[in-house]
Amino acid sequence: MSRRKEKLSLGAFLLFTGHHVAAWRSPEASDSQSLADFVQFARIAEDAKFDAIFLADMVGVRVDRIEGASHKAHSGVYPFEPLTLLSALAAVTSRIGLVATVSTSYSEPFNVARQFGSLDRLSGGRSGWNLVTSTEASAALNFNHDGLVAHAERYARAEEFADVVLGLWDSWDHDAFERDRASGRYFDPDKLHLLNHQGRHFRVRGPLNIPPSPQGRPVLVQAGSSGPGKELAARTAEAIFTAQQTLEDAVSFYSDVKGRLHKYGRDADELKILPGIFPVVAETESEAKEKFDELQSLILPQVGLDLLAGFLGAPEIVHADPNGPIPALKETEGGKSRQALLLELARREGLTVRDLYLRIAGARGHWQLVGTPVQIADQLEERFQNYGADGFNIMAPTLPGGLTDFIRLVVPELRRRGLFRDEYEGTTLRDHLGLRRPQPARRSAAEAAE
Amino acid sequence: MSRRKEKLSLGAFLLFTGHHVAAWRSPEASDSQSLADFVQFARIAEDAKFDAIFLADMVGVRVDRIEGASHKAHSGVYPFEPLTLLSALAAVTSRIGLVATVSTSYSEPFNVARQFGSLDRLSGGRSGWNLVTSTEASAALNFNHDGLVAHAERYARAEEFADVVLGLWDSWDHDAFERDRASGRYFDPDKLHLLNHQGRHFRVRGPLNIPPSPQGRPVLVQAGSSGPGKELAARTAEAIFTAQQTLEDAVSFYSDVKGRLHKYGRDADELKILPGIFPVVAETESEAKEKFDELQSLILPQVGLDLLAGFLGAPEIVHADPNGPIPALKETEGGKSRQALLLELARREGLTVRDLYLRIAGARGHWQLVGTPVQIADQLEERFQNYGADGFNIMAPTLPGGLTDFIRLVVPELRRRGLFRDEYEGTTLRDHLGLRRPQPARRSAAEAAE
Repeated sequence: MSRRKEKLSLGAFLLFTGHHVAAWRSPEASDSQSLADFVQFARIAEDAKFDAIFLADMVGVRVDRIEGASHKAHSGVYPFEPLTLLSALAAVTSRIGLVATVSTSYSEPFNVARQFGSLDRLSGGRSGWNLVTSTEASAALNFNHDGLVAHAERYARAEEFADVVLGLWDSWDHDAFERDRASGRYFDPDKLHLLNHQGRHFRVRGPLNIPPSPQGRPVLVQAGSSGPGKELAARTAEAIFTAQQTLEDAVSFYSDVKGRLHKYGRDADELKILPGIFPVVAETESEAKEKFDELQSLILPQVGLDLLAGFLGAPEIVHADPNGPIPALKETEGGKSRQALLLELARREGLTVRDLYLRIAGARGHWQLVGTPVQIADQLEERFQNYGADGFNIMAPTLPGGLTDFIRLVVPELRRRGLFRDEYEGTTLRDHLGLRRPQPARRSAAEAAE
Repeated sequence: MSRRKEKLSLGAFLLFTGHHVAAWRSPEASDSQSLADFVQFARIAEDAKFDAIFLADMVGVRVDRIEGASHKAHSGVYPFEPLTLLSALAAVTSRIGLVATVSTSYSEPFNVARQFGSLDRLSGGRSGWNLVTSTEASAALNFNHDGLVAHAERYARAEEFADVVLGLWDSWDHDAFERDRASGRYFDPDKLHLLNHQGRHFRVRGPLNIPPSPQGRPVLVQAGSSGPGKELAARTAEAIFTAQQTLEDAVSFYSDVKGRLHKYGRDADELKILPGIFPVVAETESEAKEKFDELQSLILPQVGLDLLAGFLGAPEIVHADPNGPIPALKETEGGKSRQALLLELARREGLTVRDLYLRIAGARGHWQLVGTPVQIADQLEERFQNYGADGFNIMAPTLPGGLTDFIRLVVPELRRRGLFRDEYEGTTLRDHLGLRRPQPARRSAAEAAE
């Protein structure tokens, strides 16, 4: 296989005080509660020429297992709401992309389209929307539901929501606003396009009441890996944030998703695949392992048991003895395959409850890399060159410590190999990711309906 | 009447390129399209120690009368969405309050509560929410409605919406988040409060997934002057942005609204009344008039006719001859009293169509003051000392020109009279407005329902 010509992309996934569930107790982490903390993180990533910073989101707090929730930073209480935080960061950064997660489940598409359009204008074309559906009952209860909305219904809404947002982003031609003081014409009405969307979930006339986006449209990112999630991504997304543990799985996911683009009239390079990685790096392998073990040692039993209860879909496990074997579990409705996998692992290796929760605590399902800069760069290069990824979203174990480590140790190694940029070449998030300015194909259909 | 001891408040209402409908054609106005423009406006107001900047909003574009809409900046297309813009400004200002308008008609209370909570944390306690209901059909059509929602229904939703937002803002005691690295406890579960709201429009469990507001709660502002609007304000608002032309009307509105607070267990000083003023100021009266006439001369006929059509509720008037008399109008459903007033004025003074639209074009219903610094300060002082206002929201005719004029000429005159502060005394918007940190009275009711 010949070497890929393009560079890989790097994102900095800024989650609480870091991705490790006990990061907030580590001296490597700030408490990540002030705007100044996030300005620091964003500038560290921008100085390193990362493509983007990336913010997750949820709209509920996990209060059902309060003992675990109250002992971790990862309970669903975010220090800031993503769109407002990225807007603040837009004012104090100049090049790095700004990607926020917003769920389609509990917002109106007009408001979401407009806020991302606004962020794009505030930042000079650096915004991206990570489209998710909400998978937690704790969120549903804050939005008039009695419990979680079914998967199929969430995706039906998400499909239509994405179409409305994309359509609204094409409300105005790029040169619609003349603002000609002499003639007195402010905009050209022929360059204004009503959407006139009439669907099952939404009826939206348009136009969006904000001038057009500096990069054509904000970049559309997605994270779903289910069948409907992959189809929605193949049809609409420009980047996927995903989780695969092995090279084989990554290559298979990559070719699966890219293979779906053709039927939607899209080229394979219109969608970038960016798996998350959880790197613990140090000069030597033993130092890296030591650093990881230190983080693991900060996990309180109630937090580990809470994590395990979530992964197994078995709330009763919070009462288990950490030093004992895995207790017999009640039948569960959700996540059966994950439960079976973990129980099989525990049986095979004779793990205690604590052993098992420590296995899942670090990267929480993402690809965990503990080692030297060369070891980690080798693995990233292998995955990139074999078309398992177009880049990586760095889930630093601690913030800022883990991010700084990665940038100080791994990024120079990637640069030595010609895999990562030395300088930004463009100014927008599309420029960084190598994405074209989209053509408003949707336009004609919308106008036909007028 | 003895002199009031407190100082008056000043807000800078930042609307497009200025409040005058033709401001965008004036050399005194920037095109107000970039973040840099708004950073400049905010810093001008902060350097002058204003209490707050204030952003209006709408969620639709007035495309039904496209000829007028396409020749003005005031068509409903805002350069930025308010919450994202204020979040960006939070990062580059340090003391001035940040008040954004968000409608209760087309959003979810959880999302609104959270974004204002986030803005409050980003800004160190400087956020305010201007609660409005949406009065335009052009907005309704973007949110699944076939036309405007009835007034009573809009207010019923707004009442419940406000209760949910206020309740969510009290989700966490100010000291709930311990973040004790040694013990591993992140928050104290006894200081978390579920809302458990079950109403006609909303069911919201809570808690809000953001730590508590630095100023207790964001400041709640309102603008409605109808009966239900005044009741909602008396029950929940901490500032009212209003419009009265005469001293008599202002004093009557002031005492009416303040008189309603008692029945909700509130003191008169828990609600500040801040009328909008549209000031055109210059060293001499003739210069001020000249400046105003210059702005008026920039109004194109199609824009004037469009304004008049809106004020009279008579779309057919866009075809009238500007130099002719007011044509006979069809019967109208909405705004009958305003129509009758304007028609009577035109008859009494023998006004042409152009004369009439020029009368309403400047301040568009707000208090218009054209004169010298002393003349304007006299009128503001009179209104303040006679309890017609607790301060004023400055609707500069042009931005930044008109705002700079007011600050350079009128503010020093107010300071000489001891009416306006020389320096900020506190750090939060509550500090500036003289508002107490609210007690979460709502708490007990919510908890009783648990």
